[in-house]
Amino acid sequence: MHAITISEPGGPEALVWREAPDPVPGEGEVLVEVVAGAVNRADVLQRQGFYDPPPGASPHPGLECSGRIAGLGPGVSGWSVGDEVCALLSGGGYAEKVAVPAGQLLPVPGDVGLTRAAALPEVVCTVWSNVFMVAHLRPGETLLVHGGSSGIGTMAIQLAKAVGARVAVTAGTRQKLDRCAELGADILINYREQDFVAEIKEATGGAGADVILDNMGAKYLDRNVRALAVNGRLAIIGMQGGVKGELDIGALLAKRAAISATSLRARPLAEKAAIVAAVREHVWPLLEAGRVRPVVDREIAMDDAAEAHRVLEESGHVGKVLLVVP
Amino acid sequence: MHAITISEPGGPEALVWREAPDPVPGEGEVLVEVVAGAVNRADVLQRQGFYDPPPGASPHPGLECSGRIAGLGPGVSGWSVGDEVCALLSGGGYAEKVAVPAGQLLPVPGDVGLTRAAALPEVVCTVWSNVFMVAHLRPGETLLVHGGSSGIGTMAIQLAKAVGARVAVTAGTRQKLDRCAELGADILINYREQDFVAEIKEATGGAGADVILDNMGAKYLDRNVRALAVNGRLAIIGMQGGVKGELDIGALLAKRAAISATSLRARPLAEKAAIVAAVREHVWPLLEAGRVRPVVDREIAMDDAAEAHRVLEESGHVGKVLLVVP
Repeated sequence: MHAITISEPGGPEALVWREAPDPVPGEGEVLVEVVAGAVNRADVLQRQGFYDPPPGASPHPGLECSGRIAGLGPGVSGWSVGDEVCALLSGGGYAEKVAVPAGQLLPVPGDVGLTRAAALPEVVCTVWSNVFMVAHLRPGETLLVHGGSSGIGTMAIQLAKAVGARVAVTAGTRQKLDRCAELGADILINYREQDFVAEIKEATGGAGADVILDNMGAKYLDRNVRALAVNGRLAIIGMQGGVKGELDIGALLAKRAAISATSLRARPLAEKAAIVAAVREHVWPLLEAGRVRPVVDREIAMDDAAEAHRVLEESGHVGKVLLVVP
Repeated sequence: MHAITISEPGGPEALVWREAPDPVPGEGEVLVEVVAGAVNRADVLQRQGFYDPPPGASPHPGLECSGRIAGLGPGVSGWSVGDEVCALLSGGGYAEKVAVPAGQLLPVPGDVGLTRAAALPEVVCTVWSNVFMVAHLRPGETLLVHGGSSGIGTMAIQLAKAVGARVAVTAGTRQKLDRCAELGADILINYREQDFVAEIKEATGGAGADVILDNMGAKYLDRNVRALAVNGRLAIIGMQGGVKGELDIGALLAKRAAISATSLRARPLAEKAAIVAAVREHVWPLLEAGRVRPVVDREIAMDDAAEAHRVLEESGHVGKVLLVVP
């Protein structure tokens, strides 16, 4: 098969489409013939040499894909060769074939289509596990999503609205905020021009956000704590603004608030399967009904993954950037 | 009645036993004739002027007491004049009488006795709400308790052992650690001589603590995060080691860990009542059966509350210091 390989960490040009050994599905795994993959920030870190695949994972980047089942390893039931699926991966999505534990497979929902289904697994599992399974966002509460126009952000807005929450977003341009509003966001904050702490307080009568989904880490830590409501929950899923920051424990305690930080990739199989099962139960019906849709910025041929990474790094996109197998 | 009053913030001598107006039970409250109160760190902060009573609370210190119901306000059912009770208070326990919402009353369990029951409400509610309701300590997991010989610590050890968890404690002397061992602690760490991160790692095969109950705040923040296991939960209930500390978000994220910080006193009535109800359901049967007991260091006459504060500040005690109405 062909796959994107990284001989040396570096810029987008480090991503080269070349011959690579076919993966072999092990016990409990299926072989997927990939139709499309999707790009995540973690792929950029992996390309730069800052985020190696966990032990046992594919050396190729790519944390999600869609495609058709081309083979079953021992001990797999409930799936058949030819099934159209999308999958949460610990790597290997930038390739013509990938082996994936059956517990990380999901059917292609409703009229989403096989290619666009590649936009779903990572964002849906990340949003559901953090905002709902960990932070327990409830109807009537306010969710603040940083980076509302990202793949994660566009899904977080839709899922939070679907459960009856109020949604605030930050983004860096009017155009991005308009797209967030189209998806249902109630409170739009331009982080280049506005103080998100002041804005969320004003929009909530001084209360603050019940849940914050954060991809900035250290840079926003203190402001996020100040933006939380009493009993608020800060869910950190990225550290684009740095790794270490000062925590005001007194402010956290006065609010009886909590901070969690998670990632999907390194979780054991059983935890990933539990998240995928929860997503299939709670989110898939919304996708089947068309109440929630993947937001796709553009499709790029997978052999030009370098271009897809440039798009992501320039941050002009809204939603997911897909890589389509040529 | 008589009560401990604080005319000016200061040292223990600021606590003066003098005449004060009788409290009047409002809607949903009962009047308790106090037999004993107990001393908490928060009382010391209040005496020093750093922790004012929340709006509507008694001006007198004291977050828990035991006694007999002497009167019922409007709308109280399920309790009668003469009932022997202990109670979680938002203040006013250092007094001959206190008015308390009925939802914060608990019966005197088993053979604990009326006086010693004053040692229970604050520690049991704090430990149960943090270790079990927020951090969800499960059988087979490891709990690390900082200050294992404190009132909170001695109760945390017993409750965690009662649910089948393994318990590690830190304390500053061999004598205190011995008392923790008698209560069931499995892993004893002298924080003056040992590195608790290294000790908890070694005792858990490198895994770390699943839950940490912390009263130190900033001083221990970084070490607590390092001492956590994967999926670990740090529950902060005090800031004796400072308010602001550097948080390594990367370490937290790599462990998919969480930090919560809470206090009881400022919670709304409904939340306190929910905690008290959970405690009555889950902890009271253990007290009734004698499987869990209050640990009382000594009893001091309430008019000499200054002496009780000296004892607490010298930190030579194990368990609770009680104040008995003279």
